[in-house]
Amino acid sequence: MFELGIHIIADFLGVDPRKIARVEDLRVILDKVVSESGLHVVSSIFHQFEPYGVSAAYILCESHLSVHTWPECGYVALDIFTCGSDECALKAFDLLVRELKPEFVEKKVIRREFYEKNRNSNT
Amino acid sequence: MFELGIHIIADFLGVDPRKIARVEDLRVILDKVVSESGLHVVSSIFHQFEPYGVSAAYILCESHLSVHTWPECGYVALDIFTCGSDECALKAFDLLVRELKPEFVEKKVIRREFYEKNRNSNT
Repeated sequence: MFELGIHIIADFLGVDPRKIARVEDLRVILDKVVSESGLHVVSSIFHQFEPYGVSAAYILCESHLSVHTWPECGYVALDIFTCGSDECALKAFDLLVRELKPEFVEKKVIRREFYEKNRNSNT
Repeated sequence: MFELGIHIIADFLGVDPRKIARVEDLRVILDKVVSESGLHVVSSIFHQFEPYGVSAAYILCESHLSVHTWPECGYVALDIFTCGSDECALKAFDLLVRELKPEFVEKKVIRREFYEKNRNSNT
């Protein structure tokens, strides 16, 4: 059976700007979170916006994790898309909340199950 | 005013596996689409899964574009998240449909407007 997984789309507000302004600081947090969540990194890229702000993308065996930050607003846009078990994605989300300590969190969980739905509709 | 943009989440089914099996083939398509859509790439990474399958992530000035492929199922998982104008993201989506010619498309468009909603709720 061809199984997809979940896509967590989250927006954090009220994050300490010092944690999310520079690649060197945010990267330490993200590397730790990805490692502790049990996800498997195959490649990662980071971009430093000036005067502040970071974009990061990790390609995972399980799909990807991306983060964009607007330190001037204390805002973080997070995506975690994983195939297979949901457990690691949910754990990564929880760990990021713990590390970044946002005042407000908006979280959507989307199932990417297009293939199964279409297969079912043809049977 | 702090403006976010849109996040297009799309699933393509029935894509020619020859277009999406290898990095060298898919990269040509993606580079062309990103360029023609008016998006601005700051960094990109690609991973070749064996025996086939590609993950790609572009960090953009406008946020990111990511693609994961399962050639054995003719399946592509696409994300385009852009800040500011929606136009380039929608154009990139249309160009990818034109290039990959999926038999089925499922598309969701999510507005990431958390910040504005919260700001409004406090006024």
